[in-house]
Amino acid sequence: MNNFNYYTPTKVFFGEGRVNEIGDILKSYNINNILIVYGGGSIVKIGLLSKVIELLNKDNIKYYELRGVEPNPLLSKVREGIEIVNKNKLEFILAIGGGSVIDTAKAIGYGVFNGGDVWDFYSKKRKPNGSMPIGVILTIAAAGSEMSDSSVITNGDTKEKRGCNTNYCRPRFAVMDPTLTVTLPDYQTMSGCCDILMHTMERYFTRGGNLDLTDEIAEGLMRTVFKYGTVLHENPSDIKARGEIMWASSLSHNGLTGCGNDGGDFMSHKLEHELSGKYNVTHGAGLSVIWPSWAEYVYMNNLDRFYKYAKNVLGIEGTDKMDVAKKGIRKTKEIFTSWGLPIKMKELNINPTHEDIVDMAKSCFDSCGGPKGSSRLLDLDDMINIYTNAL
Amino acid sequence: MNNFNYYTPTKVFFGEGRVNEIGDILKSYNINNILIVYGGGSIVKIGLLSKVIELLNKDNIKYYELRGVEPNPLLSKVREGIEIVNKNKLEFILAIGGGSVIDTAKAIGYGVFNGGDVWDFYSKKRKPNGSMPIGVILTIAAAGSEMSDSSVITNGDTKEKRGCNTNYCRPRFAVMDPTLTVTLPDYQTMSGCCDILMHTMERYFTRGGNLDLTDEIAEGLMRTVFKYGTVLHENPSDIKARGEIMWASSLSHNGLTGCGNDGGDFMSHKLEHELSGKYNVTHGAGLSVIWPSWAEYVYMNNLDRFYKYAKNVLGIEGTDKMDVAKKGIRKTKEIFTSWGLPIKMKELNINPTHEDIVDMAKSCFDSCGGPKGSSRLLDLDDMINIYTNAL
Repeated sequence: MNNFNYYTPTKVFFGEGRVNEIGDILKSYNINNILIVYGGGSIVKIGLLSKVIELLNKDNIKYYELRGVEPNPLLSKVREGIEIVNKNKLEFILAIGGGSVIDTAKAIGYGVFNGGDVWDFYSKKRKPNGSMPIGVILTIAAAGSEMSDSSVITNGDTKEKRGCNTNYCRPRFAVMDPTLTVTLPDYQTMSGCCDILMHTMERYFTRGGNLDLTDEIAEGLMRTVFKYGTVLHENPSDIKARGEIMWASSLSHNGLTGCGNDGGDFMSHKLEHELSGKYNVTHGAGLSVIWPSWAEYVYMNNLDRFYKYAKNVLGIEGTDKMDVAKKGIRKTKEIFTSWGLPIKMKELNINPTHEDIVDMAKSCFDSCGGPKGSSRLLDLDDMINIYTNAL
Repeated sequence: MNNFNYYTPTKVFFGEGRVNEIGDILKSYNINNILIVYGGGSIVKIGLLSKVIELLNKDNIKYYELRGVEPNPLLSKVREGIEIVNKNKLEFILAIGGGSVIDTAKAIGYGVFNGGDVWDFYSKKRKPNGSMPIGVILTIAAAGSEMSDSSVITNGDTKEKRGCNTNYCRPRFAVMDPTLTVTLPDYQTMSGCCDILMHTMERYFTRGGNLDLTDEIAEGLMRTVFKYGTVLHENPSDIKARGEIMWASSLSHNGLTGCGNDGGDFMSHKLEHELSGKYNVTHGAGLSVIWPSWAEYVYMNNLDRFYKYAKNVLGIEGTDKMDVAKKGIRKTKEIFTSWGLPIKMKELNINPTHEDIVDMAKSCFDSCGGPKGSSRLLDLDDMINIYTNAL
């Protein structure tokens, strides 16, 4: 049991039809003018954007728009947003979308509040001293950014994908209506489920310290995602399953599943960031490729945890810890495959050369500031090996 | 799956030695003068009060003291606190203690912020529009008030024990050091464990709607409390067990274990409030008496949930739902007994007459505003029967 801080101030409005309250919610914060940040066509297509705008107009809330945030969101779009907010002296940022949109909103919030070059906070040159307030209407259950302290941005020039984690950027509120996710393509839904699982796995596969209560919550969450991920792959319009997965996305990354641990492992994420930064892979699909290779590489260094995972989450029986642990990893891969997710880079049509891999590993190693990882401390060679085994 | 709101803004500082940060924490909120609220001798005896005062002095934070809060905290003490805060224009209330102390601090916060008679908010004459900010140094794991929206106060004149629930009173921060609870008498520790269980049970034994994820968390929490409650009854100085129970106390009552439910049952609590209001019983011990009688009275109306509880929380096997459910209730009673807790009123040396019981039932019925309960809607006669069966 390690000491820990826990802070999840985001007000959650969960359930069907809650978007209708957006005007009242903003008014409760005395907000009169906002920047709306969103992606491309989908929220226009499902009529969500026009509905939100109608509600804002009704409550006389002025708005500007930042449209066109892409997956693996770009620094250039963040700079665009900062300019709009500064020019129009806006008070609040409303993200309508999933992780990419929310992370962009968070980055804009850092940039406006602190001034200077916003990339400094991602390249770790400076630490932010605060952020503009942001709120969320969630349309993709995956990143958990709607309650997390995390924001990940890609520098299009250098291909670096970097994160900035502080409590300042946790959203003030999140409207979570599971019905908004029904129209997501299957591949996005399943990638999201993988991302959700990984946020808990990164906190679970550590070298001891987690409270039993934390493990109970983490295991229950993973069981829920495995169960309802499979339901959604079969029946995407199952609203109950959408709800389970959406709430899991938030709880998986708000800190709850890591209370008392050593800070978590997070090496699958670090390794994946290089991959999706370089090749623009869907984050969850990058994780379904990296995690198995990482798990097979490190499980002997953290056998008790991999055994516990296989037994409690996947129901694998047996007394030979190594055998059970291996079966747990294999079963996880099988589930990813059954969800239509890749478990090798070639399934993503990525064929990096050895030099490409060394580049990614070096970039990862540098961004970690040296050897890193809880289940197993990974050095540069380990990172190269994990990428290579994932080809 | 019902719609729900979730809001837990309390900043948690968990672990050994975190009390040393109290000055820094208060300074981070720009607090310069406070009211300290506490109970009797124990925090003096273990040196906690003098330590906190030393830290406040070091940081030039002025303080006034409200001492002598008792279990089932009294309205008269709340009024005393309101007077001190108003007279000295204090900015913040720091509760050092458990549920009674925190609930008193919350009530003072309501009283100062809103003016008028503070009992109005508990007798439901008025609704509060806000509260003074409060913070907590937790010394008893039980009530969960350190993160909850709840405050319960007893009117010494009328013997009414009433609650007021709003988000305004959720503490700004809670310092949770499990080592501070080591000196608690066994009876207090075990009553606390029962109270913690009950906060989740009240949200669990409902007529459907809970998310699977919520059930997973609730069941994992209950398993943890049953396990580590028994550990603490054997070995009160087990710090890991203290930590598990302390974190469970907060998560059990902050809303997490009820997400998606129909609002919860809470009739065991309502019935117990009359008992402890009238006879000044330790709340957790009152619950260990009321819950079995309530459960035996209502389980046939909510058999699936009682079956699920027996199976998933207590590991009782079998296919006959009624049989498994009954065994689950019996097993719960056995655990309470093994913890040294009463399961009948006579074990508390309480022998109410039929008239006393009718009085309690009427008072409960009135405070509920009519028939109430999720597992089974209880009318006045049902309440009389449940009290009578608990004699």
